Amino acid sequence: MNDNDKYKNSVGIVETQYFTFGDPPGELILISGKKLGPITLAYETYGTLNEKKDNAILILHALSGSAHAAGYHSTEENNPGWWDLYIGPGKPFDTEKYFVICSNIIGGCTGSTGPCSINPATEKPYALDFPVITVNDMVNAQYHLIRHLGIERLLSVAGGSMGGMQALSWTILYPEMVKSAIPIATSARISAQGIAFNEVGRQSIINDPNWKSGNYYGSWPPDSGLSVARMIGHITYLSERHLHERFGRKFQNPKYTEADFRTEFMIESYLHYQGAKFVNRFDANSYLYITRAIDFYDLEKDYGTLINAFEHVQANFLFISFTTDWLYPSAMSKEILKALRSNGKNVIYADIETESGHDTFLLDHKVLQRYISNFLKSEFEKN
Amino acid sequence: MNDNDKYKNSVGIVETQYFTFGDPPGELILISGKKLGPITLAYETYGTLNEKKDNAILILHALSGSAHAAGYHSTEENNPGWWDLYIGPGKPFDTEKYFVICSNIIGGCTGSTGPCSINPATEKPYALDFPVITVNDMVNAQYHLIRHLGIERLLSVAGGSMGGMQALSWTILYPEMVKSAIPIATSARISAQGIAFNEVGRQSIINDPNWKSGNYYGSWPPDSGLSVARMIGHITYLSERHLHERFGRKFQNPKYTEADFRTEFMIESYLHYQGAKFVNRFDANSYLYITRAIDFYDLEKDYGTLINAFEHVQANFLFISFTTDWLYPSAMSKEILKALRSNGKNVIYADIETESGHDTFLLDHKVLQRYISNFLKSEFEKN
Repeated sequence: MNDNDKYKNSVGIVETQYFTFGDPPGELILISGKKLGPITLAYETYGTLNEKKDNAILILHALSGSAHAAGYHSTEENNPGWWDLYIGPGKPFDTEKYFVICSNIIGGCTGSTGPCSINPATEKPYALDFPVITVNDMVNAQYHLIRHLGIERLLSVAGGSMGGMQALSWTILYPEMVKSAIPIATSARISAQGIAFNEVGRQSIINDPNWKSGNYYGSWPPDSGLSVARMIGHITYLSERHLHERFGRKFQNPKYTEADFRTEFMIESYLHYQGAKFVNRFDANSYLYITRAIDFYDLEKDYGTLINAFEHVQANFLFISFTTDWLYPSAMSKEILKALRSNGKNVIYADIETESGHDTFLLDHKVLQRYISNFLKSEFEKN
Repeated sequence: MNDNDKYKNSVGIVETQYFTFGDPPGELILISGKKLGPITLAYETYGTLNEKKDNAILILHALSGSAHAAGYHSTEENNPGWWDLYIGPGKPFDTEKYFVICSNIIGGCTGSTGPCSINPATEKPYALDFPVITVNDMVNAQYHLIRHLGIERLLSVAGGSMGGMQALSWTILYPEMVKSAIPIATSARISAQGIAFNEVGRQSIINDPNWKSGNYYGSWPPDSGLSVARMIGHITYLSERHLHERFGRKFQNPKYTEADFRTEFMIESYLHYQGAKFVNRFDANSYLYITRAIDFYDLEKDYGTLINAFEHVQANFLFISFTTDWLYPSAMSKEILKALRSNGKNVIYADIETESGHDTFLLDHKVLQRYISNFLKSEFEKN
């Protein structure tokens, strides 16, 4: 591939930016009641904010995402940002029309304040002194970024999985700032099974002797534990059908006479690769904090009922679920849909037929792309 | 509970027995071509073999089972054998009528030859020198036990999960010895997703520094890794619905202000308990070998087609699947059913409505009990 192809329909070379606030602390009081600061948020922007400042879209990422949603950080980078298939000139989040912002989250490990950041009180990494954070805390921090960018109202907030949770919380916490929302493959609260999978991943990290109660910075990190956690995650992000179509029972190595417990099946090789790749870019403590934020997310518990939760929301919604998503099944979206409609909100809902499970939103899915594109066009024209 | 209640409908106090064969080695050539011996199989029997020797039923256990299927080993033991709800006077496997045998498997760790047994060649535990074993090897070893007990034809072979795989292999490998079979919640080959979950469990064990390439006997075993493996297993044995009904999102500890990553939800507490309990009774290397045997099980690969696999089978079948079993879904049973019917075999099939998932066969399930009871009665009357 030459560079011309690489940058076709791409936002091209981009740079992560950083916004710091809350110094001295106090500007952000967490849901737990604790104060956190200074807080840095990593973010990227693509396209241009128009004069009316009414074309800004906030992209929110899932558990393992980052601010780098589109384009390339350098000519050497081979893989573009995580949602490059959806963000760029002529793409659903059309950077020729919209000003697209992707904000990282607090608790993360890719430029924003999280457990691997330096705690100003001790001049050492926070590790487990980092406070418990919730999805609402992530959103409250992003609010400061959006105001810093001079935006009073977002054309849309959009994201899949935990990104969808952030989108929901944006519509609830800042109703007057959100014109529309695109929550994808998400939930008002994950299931007991979802908590169970998260917990097994956490146990795998905590049981790794390199974890050292979180104080591993400067020494070898708990890579083995984090890698197993990621493998568990990957199984849940894909449908049984997708695994079958893609890997089936294909052997990597057709003999089975040696008991060395190395890779025998293709699916194993795939999981090992995903686990190994992940530990190079992610911090184990962030994995613990963020999965906990997902577990704790519970709009019904926070507001009494889902109907109450969405009472004051002003946004119009494009709600997407995937038929083979067993981690955030369609029923979870339909439950929210019902609460939104009971409140008389405008909702377009699509339960998209796919064999690829939860992670469909990251794939080149034409139907999903068309839904987003049309919805945004219609919302923008209402300005 | 007083002892009268405890032993009501129970086979009472029982003792595990041991049968050793293959010394000098050579009596058992494994599917891999390697010779293994001497081989000990742990087993228990309940009831009495009749004069015609036509009332013997062989019970086959799942991944983590043992020979101890019914009754108590002592008056101090609080929990009876693993299938006590199904085996005993007046129960489906009625010990007043039938002679019930439960055989352990090679590769196991509860009395039969496995990786923790002493390798006569080195006088040390086999560890990873133990050869690769398959489900067919388990069955071929059990064949020696059944002949040793003087039984030429089994009234039935029965088991759930990997026990069902053994039952299927019994009907194929020794067609003239098996009058009927009761495979429950099983498969002719597990899915890529099933292999994936097994592999994550294995990786968790292998990554535990106490595993030491399998040479941990005499030192601290890889309990952390085995415990995580067991937790993953437990999630897959239960349905999402069952987890929801039983645990929901109930908090163990209603505060979330401290980031200690201890137990917050009931489901976590349950998983921790299951993991901790398991490491006291199971060997990590056995877990590796047995899950590999499950992964490798593939009747279609072994016989070209499933129809070929069952061509010479003489048994009548009671085939059971559970509507909420997502690890061994009903479709897997239906696939076998089709192959059996194409061969003109007699099959009763029940896809039992349940909310409890794969592990339903271990629960006090009246419908399942009635199916087994009636089927055995009818098969026995045909004698």
